[in-house]
Amino acid sequence: MKVALDAMGGDHAPEINIVGAVQALKSLEKLSHLYLVGDEDILKAEAAKHKLDLTDPRVSIVHAPEVIGMAEPGAKTVRRKKLSSISIAMDLVKDGTADAFVSAGNTGAAVAAATLKLRCLNGVDRAGIASPLPNEHGICNILDSGANPEAKPEHLVAYAIMGSAYAKYVLGVKEPKVGLMSNGEEDEKGTTFTKETFKLLRQTPGIHFIGNVEGHDLFETQLDIVLCDGFVGNIVLKSVEATAKAVSKWLKTEIKETPLRMAGAVLAQGAFKALKAKSSYETYGGSPLLGVNGVVIIAHGSSTGVAVKNAIRVAVEAVEHKINPRIEEAMATIPTAAPVSEI
Amino acid sequence: MKVALDAMGGDHAPEINIVGAVQALKSLEKLSHLYLVGDEDILKAEAAKHKLDLTDPRVSIVHAPEVIGMAEPGAKTVRRKKLSSISIAMDLVKDGTADAFVSAGNTGAAVAAATLKLRCLNGVDRAGIASPLPNEHGICNILDSGANPEAKPEHLVAYAIMGSAYAKYVLGVKEPKVGLMSNGEEDEKGTTFTKETFKLLRQTPGIHFIGNVEGHDLFETQLDIVLCDGFVGNIVLKSVEATAKAVSKWLKTEIKETPLRMAGAVLAQGAFKALKAKSSYETYGGSPLLGVNGVVIIAHGSSTGVAVKNAIRVAVEAVEHKINPRIEEAMATIPTAAPVSEI
Repeated sequence: MKVALDAMGGDHAPEINIVGAVQALKSLEKLSHLYLVGDEDILKAEAAKHKLDLTDPRVSIVHAPEVIGMAEPGAKTVRRKKLSSISIAMDLVKDGTADAFVSAGNTGAAVAAATLKLRCLNGVDRAGIASPLPNEHGICNILDSGANPEAKPEHLVAYAIMGSAYAKYVLGVKEPKVGLMSNGEEDEKGTTFTKETFKLLRQTPGIHFIGNVEGHDLFETQLDIVLCDGFVGNIVLKSVEATAKAVSKWLKTEIKETPLRMAGAVLAQGAFKALKAKSSYETYGGSPLLGVNGVVIIAHGSSTGVAVKNAIRVAVEAVEHKINPRIEEAMATIPTAAPVSEI
Repeated sequence: MKVALDAMGGDHAPEINIVGAVQALKSLEKLSHLYLVGDEDILKAEAAKHKLDLTDPRVSIVHAPEVIGMAEPGAKTVRRKKLSSISIAMDLVKDGTADAFVSAGNTGAAVAAATLKLRCLNGVDRAGIASPLPNEHGICNILDSGANPEAKPEHLVAYAIMGSAYAKYVLGVKEPKVGLMSNGEEDEKGTTFTKETFKLLRQTPGIHFIGNVEGHDLFETQLDIVLCDGFVGNIVLKSVEATAKAVSKWLKTEIKETPLRMAGAVLAQGAFKALKAKSSYETYGGSPLLGVNGVVIIAHGSSTGVAVKNAIRVAVEAVEHKINPRIEEAMATIPTAAPVSEI
């Protein structure tokens, strides 16, 4: 399992990527090689700082002189900066040097580079990002969380199939359950777009479609994949994260109001830590971009070292469980699957 | 100020409505009359249970033999059940008996009844629900949170104007700030729909449009109105509520794990209570349906008595500050305002 890491990607790059690399090399036995892609001088300096041993045969730096900023327009910048760390890391997957790509950088750029360089899998028209959220029964993935903001109903059908394959073969869920995000749980709720999607999903063999779902289902219902277009998915994901952060911040502020409350919080700190571990994206680490011809893992922009390490772990697991052959198999059995388009 | 309360509406109706009525009559001096609309026998029994004095000249029961269930399709059921509590309460506003309508019942039905019976204000094409969320700088309203799931860009422009009038004249915000919910803060982010809306908002005089906003802005940015179509708004609102609930539930579960944590939580309980007061919809109580020719306040389906009391308070304030004449004034100054359509 060889992974190409965009070492310049993320709000706190390159540091988090080097820290994540150190942890990944230590803890992931199946990781046979890690390519750190980015500015060679910067990465060497950072490696020295964090005691990453560059004489280790499992590591190498691949020089990429350009960086795509977090706020730059994705597709445009990928075309312009041909020597960016995202582009060069993706090339390593394209030419077979690496098995998987990981980046905490500009999501739009990573999606554009993957789509342009790797192309879509047979039978897949548009790729989608599956972003994990903690759920009482396991992990619930929002698919798509931003790759395809103006999706068509057929794209969501393909997401249902790809997401089910991911949950089954990579996450080990026996019978993955798929819901459609809507403005009410009743069958007749929704927009023209979701109603059409609902009809198609009902007819799709091989998936376990449980119908329309709402916010509370993300956390309470046994549910593996929540389908939505990339616009809605991105907004839901960010709103959920923002709410958890606001609740935690406001609770901290209230606790600091009196010494008694602070003493109480110290005694109860184990609970806060356990909650953080359960609810933090650090634990999940990475969101696969499903549907491209290569394993591509998108890590959170504000990833820490632990998050990067876990994103590399997700990449290794996706390669190990042959996610893409599984997706192609599943797509091939679906007569209504979306046609392969020229992107 | 005379308010018609749909006393049969809500997950915990009629009890919460009677409890809310008792509290409203006690605390809201400007409430001159409260019409409790619903099944007379049921309401009399409930009034006796909660010591609501029916000889009080400020209260009367208006009999409505039918109830619209929480899960029934809104518009259809309003047309079918002409003697429902929602219909009859709305009629009281239509014929001038009451100044405002309040319901914790079926939102779709309340919106349909309001639109059918009261019609839209001059210059307004579609009504929208403004749902308050706690924000570090005050209250941030999601507009629309569900009345108009397939909105057009011009509808969001009208929401910007109506929401600004509401924030200014009812909530007392000097210069209300308006954001457009999108999948990124950069101007060029969004879908065909939001990009067109963005362009129109930039050209709209009299509003303070701050551009695209994301999840974290709901809580952190000084922001009074967040615009979105009713589909996205409904999903965001429910996802935010569900996240806050999940975080609180999971924290409770973790606290119960050890006696030490439980002791700590007891000491810190003031902080939990303060957070609950800040973040609960009970405190805000009601979401105005902006754009109809009458004051209509939608309370949360799972409202408690306090929430109903606060929804009645919001109704009284909206009437007191003449929200609808203010909206008509504001709409009249906008040359690009949406045309009045026949609904």
